[in-house]
Amino acid sequence: MSSTAGQVIRCKAAVAWEAGKPLVMEEVEVAPPQAMEVRVKILFTALCHTDVYFWEAKGQTPLFPRIFGHEAGGIVESVGTGVTDLKPGDHVLPVFTGECKECRHCKSEESNMCDLLRINTDRGVMLNDGKSRFTIKGKPIYHFVGTSTFSEYTVVHVGCLAKINPAAPLDKVCILSCGISTGLGATLNVAKPKKGSTVAIFGLGAVGLAAAEGARLSGASRIIGVDLNSNKFNEAKKFGVTEFVNPKDHKKPVQEVIAEMTNGGVDRSVECTGSINAMISAFECVHDGWGVAVLVGVPNKDDSFKTHPVNFLNERTLKGTFFGNYKPRSDLPAVVEKYMNKELELEKFITHEVPFSEINKAFDYMLNGESLRCIIRMGA
Amino acid sequence: MSSTAGQVIRCKAAVAWEAGKPLVMEEVEVAPPQAMEVRVKILFTALCHTDVYFWEAKGQTPLFPRIFGHEAGGIVESVGTGVTDLKPGDHVLPVFTGECKECRHCKSEESNMCDLLRINTDRGVMLNDGKSRFTIKGKPIYHFVGTSTFSEYTVVHVGCLAKINPAAPLDKVCILSCGISTGLGATLNVAKPKKGSTVAIFGLGAVGLAAAEGARLSGASRIIGVDLNSNKFNEAKKFGVTEFVNPKDHKKPVQEVIAEMTNGGVDRSVECTGSINAMISAFECVHDGWGVAVLVGVPNKDDSFKTHPVNFLNERTLKGTFFGNYKPRSDLPAVVEKYMNKELELEKFITHEVPFSEINKAFDYMLNGESLRCIIRMGA
Ligand SMILES: NC(=O)c1ccc[n+]([C@@H]2O[C@H](COP(=O)([O-])OP(=O)(O)OC[C@H]3O[C@@H](n4cnc5c(N)ncnc54)[C@H](O)[C@@H]3O)[C@@H](O)[C@H]2O)c1
Ligand SMILES: NC(=O)c1ccc[n+]([C@@H]2O[C@H](COP(=O)([O-])OP(=O)(O)OC[C@H]3O[C@@H](n4cnc5c(N)ncnc54)[C@H](O)[C@@H]3O)[C@@H](O)[C@H]2O)c1
Ligand SMILES: [Zn+2]
Ligand SMILES: [Zn+2]
Ligand SMILES: [Zn+2]
Ligand SMILES: [Zn+2]
Repeated sequence: MSSTAGQVIRCKAAVAWEAGKPLVMEEVEVAPPQAMEVRVKILFTALCHTDVYFWEAKGQTPLFPRIFGHEAGGIVESVGTGVTDLKPGDHVLPVFTGECKECRHCKSEESNMCDLLRINTDRGVMLNDGKSRFTIKGKPIYHFVGTSTFSEYTVVHVGCLAKINPAAPLDKVCILSCGISTGLGATLNVAKPKKGSTVAIFGLGAVGLAAAEGARLSGASRIIGVDLNSNKFNEAKKFGVTEFVNPKDHKKPVQEVIAEMTNGGVDRSVECTGSINAMISAFECVHDGWGVAVLVGVPNKDDSFKTHPVNFLNERTLKGTFFGNYKPRSDLPAVVEKYMNKELELEKFITHEVPFSEINKAFDYMLNGESLRCIIRMGA
Repeated sequence: MSSTAGQVIRCKAAVAWEAGKPLVMEEVEVAPPQAMEVRVKILFTALCHTDVYFWEAKGQTPLFPRIFGHEAGGIVESVGTGVTDLKPGDHVLPVFTGECKECRHCKSEESNMCDLLRINTDRGVMLNDGKSRFTIKGKPIYHFVGTSTFSEYTVVHVGCLAKINPAAPLDKVCILSCGISTGLGATLNVAKPKKGSTVAIFGLGAVGLAAAEGARLSGASRIIGVDLNSNKFNEAKKFGVTEFVNPKDHKKPVQEVIAEMTNGGVDRSVECTGSINAMISAFECVHDGWGVAVLVGVPNKDDSFKTHPVNFLNERTLKGTFFGNYKPRSDLPAVVEKYMNKELELEKFITHEVPFSEINKAFDYMLNGESLRCIIRMGA
């Protein structure tokens, strides 16, 4: 055990005091991990849309002050009672959703929607005692999705930590904690295109580009990128996207444009936009007989997916995925190995890097649509 | 070759002269088979809802006079040029949809929606020359879905004939031509329940009962039958249905009732009603994480399938099937073998039997909801 084990750690954290206001660097107290918890020293974290979404807190019950952050890489500092899978010094990726290994979902080969540790964006406290491990002068600061990686130290449930190869560079593989794995897994684990097939990707943000990377790894012969923003097309070429369609350039529905381009439809489509129109188009653009469409984007509360049922009877399949169907503890280590084997390229997702003290710049890059992923170096 | 080969055959056929009017026994001329066609002596045929539907011709462009019938078993009388897979004396099941073995669908492992021979309910003629092979005193009588089995002899494209074990009793296996295989295949080929799983079947007509039979063969531990007609429940027990739900008996939507009965939802559901409400319920009643719903029923033209997209993101899958995903020529012979091995029970589907001369009785049994399948014996 390290010398800090069992002690409160004082360290720097970027605290969101109010919705939409710049984060403030504060000294926080981080309590020791309780039963089944692990305290992790974060070395690198990245910014994802979901952080920005809950920081803006539009149309949500706001929960502040809060420490955001959920894409990160770190090293175990100490573990609470009952933790046997991890020890101080282990390299880990915190994940916003967990794997208890005990529930029906964890025991099912097909599901990663753990009953105990499934993402909960409303809860700002730890499961064990319903309290926060973060305080500032004794006043609690809320957690975010059980990870709160915008802090030099954080406390995470052991079920939300993937133990990875210690040789893997944390400043690269930290982005596998969320969006990149989500897009990649949507293609590799759910859409499963065969070699030589045609794949349409709706939405060319980080998630969609990771889905395209999955199609490239699968040996797709054509990868058709669809986005309302034509500026996305240039960047997308690096991710194997071979053709582009902007629905705004066509009078017909984009599913018809794609059907014409592909002699009846694509073999697979992956929707990474969150737009209900894109979801419907992504389904209707797959070929009858064998086409599979996968939904990834998070829709609005009141959205309704509508299609003629004959589109199903003509042997199309519609699926959705959560975190690319990866089980965080069981499956993420192998994704890291894909990067280590040089099969998977991660560098092209990392467009920016800032020291922790300049974390608010990462928010600006994302809000201006300049960045795919901005790495935040904690050490500096 | 038989002595009738190359000759016009005169035989009895039950002709539908007008929509909804009793069929009339007529002497018809059946022309010899042309290229890629086969002339078949029908020994047994059965009546399916689809015959009744096109005979009633409500809301369709009517096509009369026509010879209906598409569930049958027979023996090859003669073959046209280019036919190498079949010879006189072979036992065959005519099928309303075909398998050319050349198109992208036939070459795909996943699809049975042949580009050349996919069901076409509007066409009343043969593909080869756009003409009918049936005449009465020279006046053409239209075909129905390429089979027209309500005739002692019929001409069928070779791609719509499954060559089966000559030891199989045609008065039983003839019902594998359509509805029974559709329901069975929907479960065995598409829903694929694992041993011990829970399966909901919506609609307990012949197709739904065949889907239940598929669930029984798969070793499902609970088979929940759902029907608006509680009279269906008693019969359904013979098909392995263990529990019954009539949506009319509940105030809540039936998907909620089923979720409560099954701790969150069934593992698989198969919809065999044609009702859009049942389709939506069948999807929404499957468990998150791994549930798969399969649509079989033929919806109305203006129906719209509606659900919240989060139901997909929670890792549910929705598929549809056509003829239970069986490829008629490649797969039906093995289904016949399942019956021969006593794995699959067919007798319980056969509730009535009439001689050909009394074919209109079969229509009455079906219209009164008395029969599952009525076998029509051609020889008498
Ligand atoms: N299911 C999961 O587990 C999971 C995890 C992470 C992210 N997500 C979701 O994935 C989606 C994509 O995330 P991102 O970070 O890449 O977002 P992003 O905003 O960077 O990218 C979305 C892209 O979609 C495009 N777009 C929007 N509407 C469109 C339409 N109708 N047609 C075509 N393109 C359209 C936008 O122009 C943009 O380029 C979001 O909805 C996010 O919430 C889901
Ligand atoms: N996809 C294919 O290849 C294929 C092939 C053959 C038949 N079918 C279709 O399968 C369906 C079933 O065929 P069948 O011959 O068994 O029909 P059927 O009429 O004998 O049985 C349908 C049953 O569904 C019940 N039902 C109707 N609405 C319901 C609802 N909302 N909830 C619960 N139960 C409801 C009815 O009471 C009836 O018992 C039809 O739509 C038919 O067109 C499809
Ligand atoms: Zn679990
Ligand atoms: Zn994220
Ligand atoms: Zn074909
Ligand atoms: Zn039929």
